[in-house]
Amino acid sequence: MDAADHQDIEVRVEDGIMIVTLNRPDKLNAYTTRMGHELAAAFRAADADDAVRAVVVTGAGRGFCAGADVSGGTAAFDTTGGGSAMFDTDPEARPGGGFIEAIFTCRKPSIAAINGAAVGVGITLTLPMDVRIAAEGAKIGFIFARRGLVPEAGSAWFLPRIVGLPQALRWSLSGRVFDAAEALRGGLVSETATPETLLARALEIAHEMTDASAPVSVALTRQMLWRFAGEPSPAGALAVDRPISMERGAHPDVQEGVASFLEKRAPAFPGKVSEDMPSQYPWWSGTY
Amino acid sequence: MDAADHQDIEVRVEDGIMIVTLNRPDKLNAYTTRMGHELAAAFRAADADDAVRAVVVTGAGRGFCAGADVSGGTAAFDTTGGGSAMFDTDPEARPGGGFIEAIFTCRKPSIAAINGAAVGVGITLTLPMDVRIAAEGAKIGFIFARRGLVPEAGSAWFLPRIVGLPQALRWSLSGRVFDAAEALRGGLVSETATPETLLARALEIAHEMTDASAPVSVALTRQMLWRFAGEPSPAGALAVDRPISMERGAHPDVQEGVASFLEKRAPAFPGKVSEDMPSQYPWWSGTY
Amino acid sequence: MDAADHQDIEVRVEDGIMIVTLNRPDKLNAYTTRMGHELAAAFRAADADDAVRAVVVTGAGRGFCAGADVSGGTAAFDTTGGGSAMFDTDPEARPGGGFIEAIFTCRKPSIAAINGAAVGVGITLTLPMDVRIAAEGAKIGFIFARRGLVPEAGSAWFLPRIVGLPQALRWSLSGRVFDAAEALRGGLVSETATPETLLARALEIAHEMTDASAPVSVALTRQMLWRFAGEPSPAGALAVDRPISMERGAHPDVQEGVASFLEKRAPAFPGKVSEDMPSQYPWWSGTY
Repeated sequence: MDAADHQDIEVRVEDGIMIVTLNRPDKLNAYTTRMGHELAAAFRAADADDAVRAVVVTGAGRGFCAGADVSGGTAAFDTTGGGSAMFDTDPEARPGGGFIEAIFTCRKPSIAAINGAAVGVGITLTLPMDVRIAAEGAKIGFIFARRGLVPEAGSAWFLPRIVGLPQALRWSLSGRVFDAAEALRGGLVSETATPETLLARALEIAHEMTDASAPVSVALTRQMLWRFAGEPSPAGALAVDRPISMERGAHPDVQEGVASFLEKRAPAFPGKVSEDMPSQYPWWSGTY
Repeated sequence: MDAADHQDIEVRVEDGIMIVTLNRPDKLNAYTTRMGHELAAAFRAADADDAVRAVVVTGAGRGFCAGADVSGGTAAFDTTGGGSAMFDTDPEARPGGGFIEAIFTCRKPSIAAINGAAVGVGITLTLPMDVRIAAEGAKIGFIFARRGLVPEAGSAWFLPRIVGLPQALRWSLSGRVFDAAEALRGGLVSETATPETLLARALEIAHEMTDASAPVSVALTRQMLWRFAGEPSPAGALAVDRPISMERGAHPDVQEGVASFLEKRAPAFPGKVSEDMPSQYPWWSGTY
Repeated sequence: MDAADHQDIEVRVEDGIMIVTLNRPDKLNAYTTRMGHELAAAFRAADADDAVRAVVVTGAGRGFCAGADVSGGTAAFDTTGGGSAMFDTDPEARPGGGFIEAIFTCRKPSIAAINGAAVGVGITLTLPMDVRIAAEGAKIGFIFARRGLVPEAGSAWFLPRIVGLPQALRWSLSGRVFDAAEALRGGLVSETATPETLLARALEIAHEMTDASAPVSVALTRQMLWRFAGEPSPAGALAVDRPISMERGAHPDVQEGVASFLEKRAPAFPGKVSEDMPSQYPWWSGTY
């Protein structure tokens, strides 16, 4: 899919930040398999483009993403015909092979600006992102148990990593819908804002991660933290961080990083994600 | 052991919730190997009985469980004779082969209503449960280091998962007894209540997980979160959640879940834990 | 290296607690490879000496550790000549083979008393310790991304374990310097104190872990929690905690632990870390 060929999302780049807007406002941006395709394509484009330093995802209108589109009735999840509105049999569109992988492996950090209702896949699609903030009053729900379903899109792995196991169990076993204030107390979002200021705040957070940080460092740091956090011992991290540190130490980025620090000025890192990833990257095999 | 053959615990089922009461009130419900046997049997019975949707565990009288019964002196832990009051050599009674396994693998969620002192095994027996709440003023202690012992019943794995590693280290290295307010601040319990309202509150939480959630979804969600939370990558969760979602999508539970949502009414899920677990379950080998 | 042969750190033992002071106050105790050597040697000495029950690490003067010494300019990280001020090619001095390993495997708990600026390796060297407290106003930064570097010293594993993944990502991707109050809110330090009272408070915390706890229990508990916390299932913990509990149950330490409890007096445990570790220890192979 051509990243520019969008129907269910809208994509623009402003000041180095890709802004992805889920764009079915008359349906509260309810998820479609096409939206999954387009979201994956947008993150792959962000990964490949040195002009994009971070990604912000938000929703058009008053919702963020109301979950799978069930306006067609129970058929939304009915897979007896080999597919459904939610469960595309096309591996490219499925959460694992598609947008979850694209977000997780992206070498640019991502931020969800949850401007309104985020339910089911509407909230699980934000979990592989690095930061989540929400509009005051936004409703959120891991409602799978109330539909007869189970946590999807890898959320049984992502959610406890973000909010801890007790909170993840509580929200997921009840399937209860809760508001942004509870999401903040539970650690699912790191702050709330008014609907009017939410996107501007998300962009500020994106700039925190791009204005003074080396692009290659950000790309590596994201993968190191997500991947080593879940390992049973520090051995993996230590085996990777030393050779990468040694190789990076000889890169002009580090000379610029130290020089700009000593000269108390903003850095201008020459390294590009498309060309300067160290020889150890990727240090894992497969996608995950 | 017949689940009804109880001496050290008491079991009743009310409105779909099994209430297990540790029942040696004159000893602050101090743990015995018989209590371990009976607790395991109760959870196995809850697992097998579709009429039981959740389990609440509390204590009779003013204590919850004062730990191993040391009223016989130092012999409580003395294994030189091949066993002891605490360490039964019968594999059925040991924490790993017995009640910890029974609670962890139970397909019904469980809630500890810690009505009073919970010390040593008296608190570690609650760790495989999904929610813990405590009566104001209840005393809690991971006192192993003060007895010359080590964290038992798998608690070196469970406790950091619940409260985070720094808090787990702090409580376990000191062996200090602390109160319910500190347990709340540290994340060991999710709320406190008066001794008079504690059980009613635990039952409310149980109903949060049963009234609107499909039984099969709850059974699967519990296992998915506990098991995938500790994996090093999302690969395992993604490999399991998609085929289970696909298979569940064709189940009448999902039709009922979507229909009840669209019709704004309470769901009446037909699926039973005893008969309708998906073909992927269990996706692990062995107990853990 | 002889533990007494110190130049960049100072070591003394007071009342059973080893106090290690990073000691280049005119450089805000900036890290050198020699400091890494000396730190590793101090922790190995603490591990071996039964008279040392815990270790406290602090800094001389107004800083804790300002990170790698970059007063020589960009050469600090330049490895093109085969080594650098930061990245010693001597395996003994490298973070993985040196002080990180020595702190992680030490059988005595350790506490960082962060008296002032702790930046880069100046903060990552505290992560394998069991408790961190900071002086009000101390500045802290995981500044690697701002220097073109990546999280080192295993910190991609340690930091998410201590503060959770979302907070770890936020601090590491921005490389922003923050103060002790933010470190407290984020869970990196467990409390703050005035610069004047900080060391006394660290010593109090050390005594919490030594005054009433059996030395062998503390040594085992530390390793059990750090190592099992990251495993994917409770199986490992259960396989180890039961035989160790059984063997400890027959040790005079447990008789003393129970007797002192029943007699409401302070315990005097006979067991020594140098001689009484159970036969199962170590239950892992390799260092990690």
